[in-house]
Amino acid sequence: MRYSIGIDFGGTNIAVGLVDESYRVVTKSSLPTGKGTRSVDAMVADMAVLCRKVAEDGGITLPEVSSIGIATPGTVNSEKGIVIDYPGMGLSSYPMAAILSDCLDGFDPARIRIANDANAAALGEAVAGAAKGADTALMITLGTGVGGGIILGGRIYDGFNFSAAELGHTVIVKDGHPCACGRRGCFEQYASATALIRMTREEMETCPESAMWQYSPTLESVNGLTSFECAKAGDAAAKRVVDRYIGYLACGVANMMNIFQPQVLCIGGGVCGQGDNLLKPLSELVFAEQYAKTAPQKTRLVIATLGNDAGIVGAAAL
Amino acid sequence: MRYSIGIDFGGTNIAVGLVDESYRVVTKSSLPTGKGTRSVDAMVADMAVLCRKVAEDGGITLPEVSSIGIATPGTVNSEKGIVIDYPGMGLSSYPMAAILSDCLDGFDPARIRIANDANAAALGEAVAGAAKGADTALMITLGTGVGGGIILGGRIYDGFNFSAAELGHTVIVKDGHPCACGRRGCFEQYASATALIRMTREEMETCPESAMWQYSPTLESVNGLTSFECAKAGDAAAKRVVDRYIGYLACGVANMMNIFQPQVLCIGGGVCGQGDNLLKPLSELVFAEQYAKTAPQKTRLVIATLGNDAGIVGAAAL
Repeated sequence: MRYSIGIDFGGTNIAVGLVDESYRVVTKSSLPTGKGTRSVDAMVADMAVLCRKVAEDGGITLPEVSSIGIATPGTVNSEKGIVIDYPGMGLSSYPMAAILSDCLDGFDPARIRIANDANAAALGEAVAGAAKGADTALMITLGTGVGGGIILGGRIYDGFNFSAAELGHTVIVKDGHPCACGRRGCFEQYASATALIRMTREEMETCPESAMWQYSPTLESVNGLTSFECAKAGDAAAKRVVDRYIGYLACGVANMMNIFQPQVLCIGGGVCGQGDNLLKPLSELVFAEQYAKTAPQKTRLVIATLGNDAGIVGAAAL
Repeated sequence: MRYSIGIDFGGTNIAVGLVDESYRVVTKSSLPTGKGTRSVDAMVADMAVLCRKVAEDGGITLPEVSSIGIATPGTVNSEKGIVIDYPGMGLSSYPMAAILSDCLDGFDPARIRIANDANAAALGEAVAGAAKGADTALMITLGTGVGGGIILGGRIYDGFNFSAAELGHTVIVKDGHPCACGRRGCFEQYASATALIRMTREEMETCPESAMWQYSPTLESVNGLTSFECAKAGDAAAKRVVDRYIGYLACGVANMMNIFQPQVLCIGGGVCGQGDNLLKPLSELVFAEQYAKTAPQKTRLVIATLGNDAGIVGAAAL
């Protein structure tokens, strides 16, 4: 059995898993990232500690691990193992693979790979999750923002400058809601969990009688569940929010279908906890809107299955 | 010297060229398509006539031609040489490569390739035009509609069902102008020559004093030049049209940059005759809007150079 290690370098936790050749996470461990309280070098040192631990827990030694992969936010040069740009952590041209290698007594740096976290999650779903076996797959993650990952020919596609797949930063409402990227009307501003919460609050403000006020007594307490849960219970205002949100989501998803026609388009992120309550109406809208209506083969539109492990599995598969 | 033949199966003309190994069109000939007046089999027979003619004009025999490529509208299975769907010509599951082979005394059907015309044009620009040498290139053609072609790894990307790259059918204005594809607010409805003409007419109707009424005395006589030419001459209303049009175009182009980060993004079609009057303001908007502002390598945004030969050259390169 061959093993690899996947590292998910998150903003809150550094999660590391030992992954077998069928992409099963065998052992797993994590430490707090400590963002803002310590240097990135110290975080990478903790990655090394966790690598040793998951290997030991799995009953193997580090040299027996075939490769180590790191999934990190930001723009990365996967070939050179460098984080080109990760403003949130103040990183620029940071040789993460080389530094981890040093922390691991010279573990061959050529066997340490690195990828953007959204891309790694897409690869994880493509090798072991909802898009398993797909040669072409897209992943759209609905979280604080809208992340994107493109898998073509079974590999991450990240463009000629490692910056591609910013699917959330495609405008679907020209001159619409301002986005942190500087544009207006980005998909992210209408399909992220943040957007869902914004829409929920807007509707609650115009509907004091809505049951959403029982579920979330203050606007501050509104979360991604408020509208979906109250809609299930029959609240008309909540249903309007859900319909509006899914309408925007379908618009962006149908755009990606028309561009890529992937074998699998995988939706991830917290909102997907809604399962069929999200997927069924979304599928109806997307397949009614997308261009290739007469194509004999249709894209499979699915919900991600790996959850928080997608980054670890994808990193291990790099 | 190796030669191949490229066939551009247009709605008005069938244009065929003999192309040398450096993708130069050596000899060229065409016949009217005769759409609506005769069978597609008869059109394919004319393709064969033209193939023989361009080979003869080039001083070689047909068996010396290494391959023949056909660029056709519609959805095609390039591997099997079949037009899956071309509603405008009433074609469905039409074995075009096999029929052309029959018309050419059994020219090896495995050496006859076929591709969607927008995809072939993109390949043409990537092998011999404005995107020459690019490993990843996008082409956006601004004509009656907005066509798209995606070149990845030097090859056409057409999705797992041969229907990808419908870049014009991505919504940029949710619930906007209705599109023939059934969606509302498609890029095509704001960036095609047709859209430019619509915007020009709208502005003229509200501005009876505009110089555009001198250039195009009736709304029916408005064309893709009206606004650009009058804007150059200083007409304020015409300038508003041009600015509005380029604003929408930039929105869709920046979307594609954020998704693909290609080495080259190539704009083709009649509107490109405007050259720098289009490219300069477009570039400013696109590079201000796109996501990878800090990336060390930037996409080259260029105007197509092959013109009407792009289809022939791309088909010959299949």
